[in-house]
Amino acid sequence: MIFLKNDYSLGAHPQVMDALVNTNMELTDGYGEDRYCRQAAEAIRQMFGCPQAEVHFLCGGTQTNQTALAAFLLRPHWSVIAADTAHICVHETGAIEATGHKINHVATKDGKLTPEMIEEVLIFHEDEHYVLPKLVYISDSTETGLIYTKKELLALRECCDKNDLLLYIDGARMAMALTCEDNDASYRDFAELADAFYIGGTKCGALFGEALVVVNDLLKPDMRFLIKQRGGMLAKGRLLGVQFDALLKDDLYLELGRHANRMAKMLAEGLSARGYSFEIPPQTNLIFPMIPKDLEEKLSKQVMYETWPVVTPTHQCIRLVTSWGTTEEEIRNFLNLI
Amino acid sequence: MIFLKNDYSLGAHPQVMDALVNTNMELTDGYGEDRYCRQAAEAIRQMFGCPQAEVHFLCGGTQTNQTALAAFLLRPHWSVIAADTAHICVHETGAIEATGHKINHVATKDGKLTPEMIEEVLIFHEDEHYVLPKLVYISDSTETGLIYTKKELLALRECCDKNDLLLYIDGARMAMALTCEDNDASYRDFAELADAFYIGGTKCGALFGEALVVVNDLLKPDMRFLIKQRGGMLAKGRLLGVQFDALLKDDLYLELGRHANRMAKMLAEGLSARGYSFEIPPQTNLIFPMIPKDLEEKLSKQVMYETWPVVTPTHQCIRLVTSWGTTEEEIRNFLNLI
Amino acid sequence: MIFLKNDYSLGAHPQVMDALVNTNMELTDGYGEDRYCRQAAEAIRQMFGCPQAEVHFLCGGTQTNQTALAAFLLRPHWSVIAADTAHICVHETGAIEATGHKINHVATKDGKLTPEMIEEVLIFHEDEHYVLPKLVYISDSTETGLIYTKKELLALRECCDKNDLLLYIDGARMAMALTCEDNDASYRDFAELADAFYIGGTKCGALFGEALVVVNDLLKPDMRFLIKQRGGMLAKGRLLGVQFDALLKDDLYLELGRHANRMAKMLAEGLSARGYSFEIPPQTNLIFPMIPKDLEEKLSKQVMYETWPVVTPTHQCIRLVTSWGTTEEEIRNFLNLI
Amino acid sequence: MIFLKNDYSLGAHPQVMDALVNTNMELTDGYGEDRYCRQAAEAIRQMFGCPQAEVHFLCGGTQTNQTALAAFLLRPHWSVIAADTAHICVHETGAIEATGHKINHVATKDGKLTPEMIEEVLIFHEDEHYVLPKLVYISDSTETGLIYTKKELLALRECCDKNDLLLYIDGARMAMALTCEDNDASYRDFAELADAFYIGGTKCGALFGEALVVVNDLLKPDMRFLIKQRGGMLAKGRLLGVQFDALLKDDLYLELGRHANRMAKMLAEGLSARGYSFEIPPQTNLIFPMIPKDLEEKLSKQVMYETWPVVTPTHQCIRLVTSWGTTEEEIRNFLNLI
Repeated sequence: MIFLKNDYSLGAHPQVMDALVNTNMELTDGYGEDRYCRQAAEAIRQMFGCPQAEVHFLCGGTQTNQTALAAFLLRPHWSVIAADTAHICVHETGAIEATGHKINHVATKDGKLTPEMIEEVLIFHEDEHYVLPKLVYISDSTETGLIYTKKELLALRECCDKNDLLLYIDGARMAMALTCEDNDASYRDFAELADAFYIGGTKCGALFGEALVVVNDLLKPDMRFLIKQRGGMLAKGRLLGVQFDALLKDDLYLELGRHANRMAKMLAEGLSARGYSFEIPPQTNLIFPMIPKDLEEKLSKQVMYETWPVVTPTHQCIRLVTSWGTTEEEIRNFLNLI
Repeated sequence: MIFLKNDYSLGAHPQVMDALVNTNMELTDGYGEDRYCRQAAEAIRQMFGCPQAEVHFLCGGTQTNQTALAAFLLRPHWSVIAADTAHICVHETGAIEATGHKINHVATKDGKLTPEMIEEVLIFHEDEHYVLPKLVYISDSTETGLIYTKKELLALRECCDKNDLLLYIDGARMAMALTCEDNDASYRDFAELADAFYIGGTKCGALFGEALVVVNDLLKPDMRFLIKQRGGMLAKGRLLGVQFDALLKDDLYLELGRHANRMAKMLAEGLSARGYSFEIPPQTNLIFPMIPKDLEEKLSKQVMYETWPVVTPTHQCIRLVTSWGTTEEEIRNFLNLI
Repeated sequence: MIFLKNDYSLGAHPQVMDALVNTNMELTDGYGEDRYCRQAAEAIRQMFGCPQAEVHFLCGGTQTNQTALAAFLLRPHWSVIAADTAHICVHETGAIEATGHKINHVATKDGKLTPEMIEEVLIFHEDEHYVLPKLVYISDSTETGLIYTKKELLALRECCDKNDLLLYIDGARMAMALTCEDNDASYRDFAELADAFYIGGTKCGALFGEALVVVNDLLKPDMRFLIKQRGGMLAKGRLLGVQFDALLKDDLYLELGRHANRMAKMLAEGLSARGYSFEIPPQTNLIFPMIPKDLEEKLSKQVMYETWPVVTPTHQCIRLVTSWGTTEEEIRNFLNLI
Repeated sequence: MIFLKNDYSLGAHPQVMDALVNTNMELTDGYGEDRYCRQAAEAIRQMFGCPQAEVHFLCGGTQTNQTALAAFLLRPHWSVIAADTAHICVHETGAIEATGHKINHVATKDGKLTPEMIEEVLIFHEDEHYVLPKLVYISDSTETGLIYTKKELLALRECCDKNDLLLYIDGARMAMALTCEDNDASYRDFAELADAFYIGGTKCGALFGEALVVVNDLLKPDMRFLIKQRGGMLAKGRLLGVQFDALLKDDLYLELGRHANRMAKMLAEGLSARGYSFEIPPQTNLIFPMIPKDLEEKLSKQVMYETWPVVTPTHQCIRLVTSWGTTEEEIRNFLNLI
């Protein structure tokens, strides 16, 4: 079987695994107060150019989004604005609402939010009979494999400033966003434009774990209480520090994102060359070709992938995902199949 | 000023007020365990033909919806399906989400849900990465002034049975729904088709208060704990029993609904006769005429009403509401203005 | 039957009822934005000497405590310190915890909190593995019928200031606290010392309703959103304004409290004269005599009251409650029985 | 420094680490639906003799307790009974209350609950003005280092059955409980007597992770939704399956518990021989000697441990903890110091 189903089915990149093995028999302080966590946090602050930011390490994406958003939405009537394809809207089993907060779902063309869409939500929310939108959630890259350009991020920031909104970026696939050929935003732009964001580990070479970076001073106090209360504070917190430390050394993180994107590009070009079209233009490591239905039957026996809910009488859209572990050989094998 | 803004700006119907005055100096048990509450509950069970139902009296609509839905959605991953114009979706400040549950908003043509819309939501919710829709919420009459026919209610019930969903009816304006000329559903149909519903008092002649009727045995246990926990249990609970007792005597409740509908019909016919069109076809006591923009300016100085978010280059939709207290003279005065 | 069971089993004081009847057919704005609410709020600000305070009217005590505390405890890890006899600890079905916040129960001698008790809780709560106590809740008068002297209130305030805690006073029986013979605190002291408090209506002459007074600027923003979200915003909000307006006119409120206390004193003196002792020294309208068990049997057939969980081999403690509606004749009849 | 501070500061036992390394480059299904999780779950069902039980793997103790209890306390007015020293009462930052449920704290002599204590809570909770206790939480071994005998567990079960309560066992240190010399309960007893329990990994040789075992059929449905919603479902779920698989092979789990207990016994006997007394009689891997205050100063420079809040004018109680990684040499060094 060729595996193009997702980017979280291998373990960790060998350098990350080595770091865990090498530190295994050390005795360190618990709950993230060890030197590995401190070191990784410091590395993050430097790379992102935000010396005042707070960095916290959590176990997974849903946990990070839920904890961060619950912490930031500190008043019960505050809501989140998000694209209706956003991870928090569909694939987190209502985790945000479970903290008591509404999400204002926004229908988008391609999974990306714009200032216009945000302002349309705001106009509708007039007084105390409605929730009060307070935070804008975007994923970069998005669940549709797209990235926000620096100009688009700036426009979102401006919109947030104008309307007293916070901006939060889900960076589950930040390695792929940053290394996308079309990208002109940097580490530093993330830290400068967002009030808080997270750097995804799980899908970018770690065994597990995400690094939440809190830039806005107002959001910092007592974050550790919230993480503990929601079960996100590992007793052996250093496991996360050790991994991020390894990932960020010598730009391994970017290298892994770049590899995933390169494999996706090879895939997309191969598909294009064979005449396939795409539901969403390929940009990062998720691509969405339209596949003839008769081919799909054959494919599904030799390739692991997921379908995407776009169907025509003759074609089915599928989602192909590459990762740091995808090989050129797998791509060639796939292209030979079609 | 002519008042066509809403149906909750007068006090209580005089017969309801008299009942409160006449019982004022009685000493009764607290928290709804008095004879007036028992009596009103019994009257409701008889009228709705549901001798086994439990009846609870609460103070207002948001409180009733929030308490009932939180009680029925007893597992944290269960969600509510509702039209995106539903009261719980817009005008209750996220009260349902505040209990931890997502609402699956459904876009509709006119504010009414259909089995097809419900099933489209269900198909999309496959496994534990999504919430699990468990309850269908409808208002009857709707926030758009429409009613569900008996056939439509039957189809919703069937859809719920097929898909293991509960059906809840918000009857804030049940008096108007039941006495609508197009209506062929009865008190008994509500009790037979819904798992639970509430009979609106606030908008139908009471000073305040709604009666929650729980038909499904599974939803009955410990309801009083939930009402108390959410602050819905009045120390002097009899205030609510006394009011419903008075409202249900000699069909006063239906009479008040019929009056509101008659006033609305007079209004709608007058508007039609003068060539006005309607955004939503008039059925009960909320009507939605399109008004030329230049007339609107004049109107807004002499009539109290709300605008409705439908605008054309030349016209603005407005919402006109009649109640048990609206007089023919007010309607005539309004029609003379336009 | 002689009624000494509680202080919420009559309707409203006749002057309050008259005010409701007289305003019944007026058309006013909804949701507490009418002139009666504005007028009553202004009267409260003047009497309590807090011209900047915000005043909100809610339906009952549990609702007010839950809404206010949830609003003030805006971070999920903040907790409330309260005496373990406090209304929020026992008789509100976990309403505070239902908003996600822990209560740190404190064992007390007599239902009253002291700075020492508060500081003992704080010492124990060191870091992010514990909740962070943030608000002190007291009732005045307490559930044990006692009041805080001005000196005691000042000491609590000082303790709160020193430890960055908020002070909230549940004034369900404020009329009785203020008119207690031992009391040296005034309306103004409540407003000066508490960050927020509520003025009880239900037990002090109103049909229903409590007035929440928010003094601390930090706690004011968006309070109406919270009230609406928790179902505490009556459509016909004026019902509450009208009642408080009537209660506060010509010191009716204090007069009613004074009457309840006078009846309780007559009761206590009669019991003392007959040799009965008290579990808690009588101060306001709740008194706790120890009754010989054989007498209790007889009493329970002719008097409505509640037992209190203090028992000796020969005696049972009972709770006797007087109200604005208790008559001297009832007290005499009771004393003749024993 | 001699390390006797806690049992979670090393990484994983080498055999567990090897298993992670060996499976690192395998591609498996995500979210716990892989063969390692299935295999480990099956091993657990066999060892505990509960072929029908459901097994779920989560990341840490607070997360497991919070998720399980929130799932089982499916009605908002249900509460937990727990010793006031229980982990959920003190060290989880109010995680249970954050799900909306009250904990009924019970003062105990030594951290162990008895049927009498439970029934005393129940008597006090009469009706809908109180929460309704529904689940009994115990830790075994306890936070005080003690175990429940089989007879004590049977008595708790009987008490729960009689009062319609669920029994949940926090087995963070189950390896130490099972291998305690005084223990006469078996794996199978846990599964037979509890409705649900968890097998601790973090403190018993794993890198991280706990196995939640749900025995009672009523508690099983949709547990995966709850785990996902609270952020407890690892994308690479197999990490947990692989670890438990390794831990349970050839009784490694019990061997590690036995070692920790043996080290603690050596410590306790050495202390006894030197004339030290214990605040709580030593039973498993947590021991609580009383240390002269002047010695404490010296000790704290050479040994890492925590103090326990019991002080006399001359002595301070301290908590010493051994683990699977503690060596005899460390114990000897410690004993030489005192």
